[in-house]
Amino acid sequence: MDMTDTGDFRGRIRQSFTRQGAMEMLGAELAQVEQAMVEIEMPFDPKLTQQHGFLHAGVISAALETTCTYAAYTTIAPEESVLTIEFKVNLMSPGRGERFLFRGEITKPGSTIIVADGRGYAIGDGPAKLIASMTSTMMIIRGRQDVVG
Amino acid sequence: MDMTDTGDFRGRIRQSFTRQGAMEMLGAELAQVEQAMVEIEMPFDPKLTQQHGFLHAGVISAALETTCTYAAYTTIAPEESVLTIEFKVNLMSPGRGERFLFRGEITKPGSTIIVADGRGYAIGDGPAKLIASMTSTMMIIRGRQDVVG
Amino acid sequence: MDMTDTGDFRGRIRQSFTRQGAMEMLGAELAQVEQAMVEIEMPFDPKLTQQHGFLHAGVISAALETTCTYAAYTTIAPEESVLTIEFKVNLMSPGRGERFLFRGEITKPGSTIIVADGRGYAIGDGPAKLIASMTSTMMIIRGRQDVVG
Amino acid sequence: MDMTDTGDFRGRIRQSFTRQGAMEMLGAELAQVEQAMVEIEMPFDPKLTQQHGFLHAGVISAALETTCTYAAYTTIAPEESVLTIEFKVNLMSPGRGERFLFRGEITKPGSTIIVADGRGYAIGDGPAKLIASMTSTMMIIRGRQDVVG
Repeated sequence: MDMTDTGDFRGRIRQSFTRQGAMEMLGAELAQVEQAMVEIEMPFDPKLTQQHGFLHAGVISAALETTCTYAAYTTIAPEESVLTIEFKVNLMSPGRGERFLFRGEITKPGSTIIVADGRGYAIGDGPAKLIASMTSTMMIIRGRQDVVG
Repeated sequence: MDMTDTGDFRGRIRQSFTRQGAMEMLGAELAQVEQAMVEIEMPFDPKLTQQHGFLHAGVISAALETTCTYAAYTTIAPEESVLTIEFKVNLMSPGRGERFLFRGEITKPGSTIIVADGRGYAIGDGPAKLIASMTSTMMIIRGRQDVVG
Repeated sequence: MDMTDTGDFRGRIRQSFTRQGAMEMLGAELAQVEQAMVEIEMPFDPKLTQQHGFLHAGVISAALETTCTYAAYTTIAPEESVLTIEFKVNLMSPGRGERFLFRGEITKPGSTIIVADGRGYAIGDGPAKLIASMTSTMMIIRGRQDVVG
Repeated sequence: MDMTDTGDFRGRIRQSFTRQGAMEMLGAELAQVEQAMVEIEMPFDPKLTQQHGFLHAGVISAALETTCTYAAYTTIAPEESVLTIEFKVNLMSPGRGERFLFRGEITKPGSTIIVADGRGYAIGDGPAKLIASMTSTMMIIRGRQDVVG
């Protein structure tokens, strides 16, 4: 992939992540940050559930969307940011497990629009289970005072 | 729309809603439950934000998805439930406001697959502002012990 | 909705529509062009089918996407154009009928990103039947020589 | 992946493909059929274009959706069929090229719902260029006389 000089993206991403009230609320942690790929982990917690006791689809979306956003951050310049225009989530298996791993990867970098794909896994006894996928479309933002970092 | 006898859906939905850990965590409340339409309200809270201080896209998704799910509940029999297969969210304006209103409505009822559309609005001074839309596809579940109510 | 001066959008849209090889191939016709809303009609034809003899999902997508695009054209300046970034289609009933009506409407106008929603109906004996819906996200294009009109 | 005995899926898929009026109209050909993966190729043709002369998004959708459908066919029993419930398409680069390759792969097999992902590429001078991606959700159909093969 053709990328701009993205400087120390790990530092920027970790700093931005700590500003997310929602990630703290979910108990989510940045697990891995690589060029064009970011992972988040989250333990199961009853406060994150829908009515059947599974991880809420909105929680899954929050985690996946955050991995896609920060995967995009690894491809943009330090003074740029991104806003998510839209995403689609497929829920493939109920969100049951001890903890969850979410990975977002850049499918199409760009100078205006970035597309990323994410996958979520339930981790417990036995092999990791694919529980959800996301495709997310983001727009690069430059020079907006309310969208920085 | 051709609907089955759905019994006292308001009671069932309110009971199911209180079982959602995630809705309590978000401070969300069921505001309105009508045949094929459900509304949820939520005050702004810094713990619900992404890195720029706007309402997190995952929080918006959680609220919209819940309105779509319960709009579906108004069209199914008491012994049935639904699972969300997938949804798409468009984020149209930053989630800024004092509180937020989310409305889900059934677009296509069915005996196997139900499609709903949702819209989210920021409420503050001035007119309500459309911040997001959702299309959600759900599957009716019968006879599964882990998916009840 | 806050719209720019869009000049004679009907003339521009009819002219652009005739340049679409795909619309001619499908036998599709522009049926209505109003501010922020465009309709296309198409007769059933066996050459437009998938393996069960229903209207092909791709044909439905082509028609819906075109209504959304031209609905966007009614909100942009004459020297601008749009490219579709992404869309989602829900197929709600098999595409059976004598002819089909597709309607695209602007949900969120904008100076960079436009969101439209479309619905497709099968027309035959009896009431029109909702067969599909679309949400489409478009980007306004300015000053690109290969994207004009 | 855990698959049922799918018999001679290549024969069934080739037969089903020839029943698609739309694939013939587009000049599309089945290029490869493997367990959980199907490819279609299509030469560029001016009759397949949108108003800027690029491959029409609906044509891209038709081809991608067909690869996803037949990838699903490789995982179902001979007496079963599938209907597409919904899909999302991201258009990443203009559809320009001498010919196009579309690949659909099963992401999540299932006994009720199947999820597939597809990618489309423009082929010309130089490396293949990613022009589009799809995520498609399908439902397995059993015992419906109008949905066979």
